[in-house]
Parts: sequence; structure tokens; C-alpha cells
Amino acid sequence: MSDAVSPLAPSTYPDMPSIAGVRIATAAAGIKYRGRTDVMMMVLDEGTSVAGVFTTSRCPSAPVDFCRANLPGGAARAVVVNSGNANAFTGRRGRETTHATAEAAAAAVGCSVSEVFLASTGVIGEPLDAGRFTHVLPELAQTATDSAWRHAAEAIMTTDTYPKMATSTVDFGGVSVSINGIAKGAGMIAPDMATMLSFVATDAAIAAPVLQGLLAEAVAPSFNSVTVDSDTSTSDTLLMFATGRAGNAPVTDADDARLGAFRAALRELLTDLARQVARDGEGARKEIQVRVEGAVDGASARRIALSIANSPLVKTAIAGEDANWGRVVMAVGKAGEPADRDRLAISFGSVRVAVDGERDPAYSEAEASEAMKEDVIRILVDIGLGDGAWTVYGCDLTKEYVAINGDYRS
Amino acid sequence: MSDAVSPLAPSTYPDMPSIAGVRIATAAAGIKYRGRTDVMMMVLDEGTSVAGVFTTSRCPSAPVDFCRANLPGGAARAVVVNSGNANAFTGRRGRETTHATAEAAAAAVGCSVSEVFLASTGVIGEPLDAGRFTHVLPELAQTATDSAWRHAAEAIMTTDTYPKMATSTVDFGGVSVSINGIAKGAGMIAPDMATMLSFVATDAAIAAPVLQGLLAEAVAPSFNSVTVDSDTSTSDTLLMFATGRAGNAPVTDADDARLGAFRAALRELLTDLARQVARDGEGARKEIQVRVEGAVDGASARRIALSIANSPLVKTAIAGEDANWGRVVMAVGKAGEPADRDRLAISFGSVRVAVDGERDPAYSEAEASEAMKEDVIRILVDIGLGDGAWTVYGCDLTKEYVAINGDYRS
Repeated sequence: MSDAVSPLAPSTYPDMPSIAGVRIATAAAGIKYRGRTDVMMMVLDEGTSVAGVFTTSRCPSAPVDFCRANLPGGAARAVVVNSGNANAFTGRRGRETTHATAEAAAAAVGCSVSEVFLASTGVIGEPLDAGRFTHVLPELAQTATDSAWRHAAEAIMTTDTYPKMATSTVDFGGVSVSINGIAKGAGMIAPDMATMLSFVATDAAIAAPVLQGLLAEAVAPSFNSVTVDSDTSTSDTLLMFATGRAGNAPVTDADDARLGAFRAALRELLTDLARQVARDGEGARKEIQVRVEGAVDGASARRIALSIANSPLVKTAIAGEDANWGRVVMAVGKAGEPADRDRLAISFGSVRVAVDGERDPAYSEAEASEAMKEDVIRILVDIGLGDGAWTVYGCDLTKEYVAINGDYRS
Repeated sequence: MSDAVSPLAPSTYPDMPSIAGVRIATAAAGIKYRGRTDVMMMVLDEGTSVAGVFTTSRCPSAPVDFCRANLPGGAARAVVVNSGNANAFTGRRGRETTHATAEAAAAAVGCSVSEVFLASTGVIGEPLDAGRFTHVLPELAQTATDSAWRHAAEAIMTTDTYPKMATSTVDFGGVSVSINGIAKGAGMIAPDMATMLSFVATDAAIAAPVLQGLLAEAVAPSFNSVTVDSDTSTSDTLLMFATGRAGNAPVTDADDARLGAFRAALRELLTDLARQVARDGEGARKEIQVRVEGAVDGASARRIALSIANSPLVKTAIAGEDANWGRVVMAVGKAGEPADRDRLAISFGSVRVAVDGERDPAYSEAEASEAMKEDVIRILVDIGLGDGAWTVYGCDLTKEYVAINGDYRS
């Protein structure tokens, strides 16, 4: 594992405002890491609604099972996240740990176990002893403040090289509301299993079913369009909370006109966080944005874009600053989606390298090579068949990725 | 690109017998490479039947289109293969090249253009001028011999570090028949696009429709169960020829009892060639064999096995000799196939590391680490749901893979 911060790390971090109704505290419980925080507790005011989206893995972690069971209740009062151990593939003991943690959190906050949400990230297959950190929860509940968002982003990191935060303030039918989000990224170090976790909170008053719909809609073009290495964690968790403290009359209808700006801001905020995750992918030196247009529909465009962004040959070419559009053709071809070789056009940045199924006659290798030196490589593919379009975010594949994930376990 | 031969290269090569009715010649036409052969011509006796299996890419090369069009005729008299240029994504000019090549071959051999088969491997998107090598075809047709199989295997190589050959002799209803096969592997070097090509010939007399059925059946557990990096070439081509010179009465029925041993030998030969391809994957230092049992059916087992063998995190762990079964759980979970986390069992070699959805209580890390030092890493996953089983062959992911595919294009 390299200690260096990603060359794509942000140069500045956003000032995270407080979100009325959300208090946060962190602790260093020494679950696995030393000299850093590894437990984060979020305390939410009564009346907070919750929405969630989880990994599609058929082998989810115990905390994912736990959150899924509580989600239909629609109410949240506490969140407990630990880093260092994923509590995944831990069988019966894993379930005992989630229940012990939730009981301790519920007692500390004075709420029901069904209003507690949990996430764990770190090593997989190692039993996680709840006793390692439940003793700190009463103090965390007491000392939680509304100004600890950056501490929260730091406490949930595993192999991330920088904390990931975003914030937005929008008009909500005449009331100003804020959205804060933090995330941790996809990175792994033997024998750790990393995970994408994200926690988003707003002071808007939005009923849980509406919040769930907003979140599902915003996750498709953001977190569900980001890939580091095509591997899906057992623990991916995105939770969103709405405290209702901003003072707006509660939204109970998904078609409520007040949601317009909020919907756009949420999508933008999640896309910002997702891109931060891609830019901190293990060993990443370049961000890749794959835009597919002209596919038969949006779902087809998304599958083609993922095929390109996940191709080891495309990713290594970009690491080598090589405008190797032949590999993009290959990745389009293997996606299994409708495509007509003789209508394809491919650009790197603003340089069109292929058109009508052949090398662009006007293509300048010098210009293409120049475009490959950017930090963000934009690949545009026009399939030429329909109106379907999608954008996927990823990163390159470098020797550092192999070193981080393949160096001998000591 | 490293000039070193793969550490997994065979220590000896098989003596390839002649196949009556097959003559081969090679030439150094300088299409791209210098100081080596790059054109291979195979001349087949009249009466030779043909079968073929091709890439599933939606953007196939011009030679793939050409072969697909000739295949229904069922008859073959000549094969021309060039390395150095794939004639892929070359539009109208690509089609002109295949037709010019086939016409030159047909004239040299004295057959119809519809009895010629072609394959090209190498750079993608560069026009291939047929004039670079059609002038050598008359001499190749004249000088072709029945003892040039190894030369053929060498002429079709691109970034392969060793030639790939296999042979088998079996009883065919009282007549001894032979099968010879050669292959080239999946390797790429910017801006080259590699390809899996394989050419198989037998002296048995087997009608084209029966031959096609045999080939399709044998390709599923062999070439269609091998992966180097999950990337599918535009040019993958497997052609099989039956000259009928062994003297057996022709087989025209797929249920003919004489096919028993032949069917098994063909499957074994193709699996041998496919494993040679995996073992020569770019940067490979270990072969991976993933065996999935207990899936709901064979197709589900295959998809789970491919998910494991293609996972960058599994492949890097094996490069690091790390018995990281958590990543295997992850890869099972992301396959999207029926799986019950709490019934999973995972072994590396003979060491069971996980059972009933938890770390095996009897698991010895020292024994597992010892198992990871082998050249061939066998991962056995029992899903615990049904009788579906499949084996997939792959290789590890090393820094050399990234270097070969990602180093700057000079």
C-alpha cells in the first residue's frame, strides 16, 4: 500500500455546513487501525426519514442485511459505522454483532433498534466483536456535534487516500435547505475488502417513500455509474436522511413541484461524490469519463459504457496515455449490445479518431496524444443507431493497482 | 513488451505427425514483424469438410465476416493466415483485402473463392494491403509439406511467448485417425490487438454438419472457458478441417458410434490448447483453474466461475500468492447467479478455507499459503444449491500485464 495521496485528490475541501437535526461524533476504537478514528456515530433528531440503496451482491454483509430489514420502517435516529472489519461472511456471529451494536446504539440515543442503521468496512471473513466499540457509543451520543462532517468522512476511510465530501444548498419552495454527503471509496488491500459507503443528510422534510424514490433516481447516473475495477463489494451502502428541521411543509408526493431544484442538486452531489471515489481508485492516476451516445436506449448505452470503462485493455492504454481506439472498438464489440461496426465514431477529448467504422482520415496522432495527457480522459463513442446515452466514471489501471492488491500478505 | 518466455511454457513440444491431406507452408512477408514468419498457408485435399466457431464480438474483423459467409458451403481447400495486422475496423478496404487474398489463394491452389478461409491477427484499424503477401501464395502452395505444423504455430504468433500445439491419435471404428491442432493466444501490445486463433485438422472423414456439431460441443468447455483478461477480440477464429484421407467410411450422422473416442479426444485437445493460451497470457506467472460445483445448473456454474476468474482482485491476490478467499466470496456475490452465502464452501488446492458461509474453523493459514506457491492454482467453490458444475481456465494479473499493455507507445 502506498501512503501517497492520489494525484487526483481535490486541492481544497468544501466547508461542510451543519445540517439541523444531525449530530456526529467519531472515536478511535482500534478495531484494526492504529492512530486514527475508526468509529463514526450519527445521531438524528426524532422525525428523521430514511432511504437506502445497497449492494447487488448475492453474498451481502451482515450490516447490509440489518439495514435492509429496518428500511421499511422509514425512520432513523442513529447510524453507527466502523472501518477495519466488514463483518461480511461471518455467519451467525455476524448477525449477533449487528444486533449487539444496534442495541447499544439504541440505548445510547434512546430509540428503538429498528431506528438504527449500520455499516462496516474492512477485512472480510473475520469475526467482528461488537465489544470492541459498543462501549464508546454512549459517549459518542453525548458529545456529538453538528460540525463534525469532515471527521466523519475521515473515520470511515479504509484505503482511501483522501476524505470525500460534498455539500449543496437549494431553494425548496421558498425555504433554503442543505444537503451534505460523505463517501468512502473502493480500494482494497490484502486481506481487506473495501466498500463504497456513503451517507447523505438534508434538513428538508421529505417522507421516507418519496426520499427513497429520489435516492433511487439519483443513484443511477452517479454511484451506479462508477467503476474502479468491476468488482462489487459485499457491503456497498448508501443511506440518506431527511431531518425535516428546515421548516418546509413535509413532502409526501413524488410529483411535488418543490422537489425540482432538490432533485437536480441531489443528483449533482452524488455524482460529485462518485467521481471522487473513482479518482481515488487504487493506483489511479487518471479519471476516465466514458460517454456513449446513439445507442438503442439508455440501458444499452450504460452497458456499453461500463464494458469500455471496465476493460483492462482500455484502462491500461489510458494509463500509458495511448489513444488506443482499437481497444474501445473491442470493448464496444464485447458488450453484446446492438452496435454496427460501420457506423461507430470514437473521440478522445475533442479529437475524433474513428468514424464510419474506420480510422478518421483527418485523425492526427499528435493531437490525440496531447489529449491523453490530461488528468481526465473523456472517451466519446457514438454508436449511430438511436438516442440512448449514458456516462460512466472510472479510472485507469496501473502497476500500483496490482502492487496494492497483489503484494504478498505479510 | 518482455522478450522472456512465460515461466509456464511447456518444457517440451509434441511431435506433430502429418495429417494426410494437409500441407503447410509459411513465409516472412514483413507485414509488420521483421526477422520472423508472418504468413501461413494451409492447402487441403479435395473433399475436405470444414467447421468453424468465431468471436461473439458485435464488431468482428473482415476475415471473420469472410469465413462466416463461406462456412455454409462446408468445403475447404485453402487457409491463409497473417500476423501483424488484424484487418479489423478497416471498413470497405478491409473487405477488398479479404477478397483479393482469397482470389490469390484460390488461383494458387486451383479452387473456388468459396473454399478459402482467412484469419488475420495484429494491429487493429490499420488498412491491410493484400499486396503485402498475396505474391507469396503461389510459391507457398507449391512448396507446402505435411511436416510444417510447428512452423505454422510459430507464424501465427503475435505476443505469444511460445508456439501452441497439440496432437492426438484415436481409434475410429477400427481405423486409426489423428487430430492436430495449433493455436495462438490472447496477448496485446499497443497498438496491437491480439486474438485467439486455432486451426485443427483430422484425416477422419466427417461430413461438415457433423463436424460443426462436434466442434461446437468441444469448444464450450475449452476455448469458451478460458479467459486472460475478460476482453474479447474482434477476430477470434477456430477452424477445423476433416480431410477424409484416413479411409474410414464417412460419418454423416452425429449419433454415429464411431465418434465416441474422437469426441473425447477433440475435447481434450482443445482444452489442452486453451490451457496453453491461458498459461501464455500476458504477464502470467500462474495458471488459475476455477471449478464451481453445486450451482443450480451448468450455465450458472460457468458464469460464477468466469466472475471469479475475471475478477481483478482475485487475479492480483493469486499473483501475490495470497489465499484471499474473501475476494472469491465477493466474485461469487457479484455474478448475479443464485447463491446462498451461508452454504458456500471454498478451497484453494486441497485446503478448505471457508465452509457454511464462514471461515473454516480448521483452516490453517500456513497450509493455504503453501498451496498458493504452486504454478497452477485450483480454486474450488461449492455453491451448495444443486448439481451444476463447470471449470474455467485463466491466469493471474501481474505488473507485467500492465507494463505490456500500458507502457507508452513510442
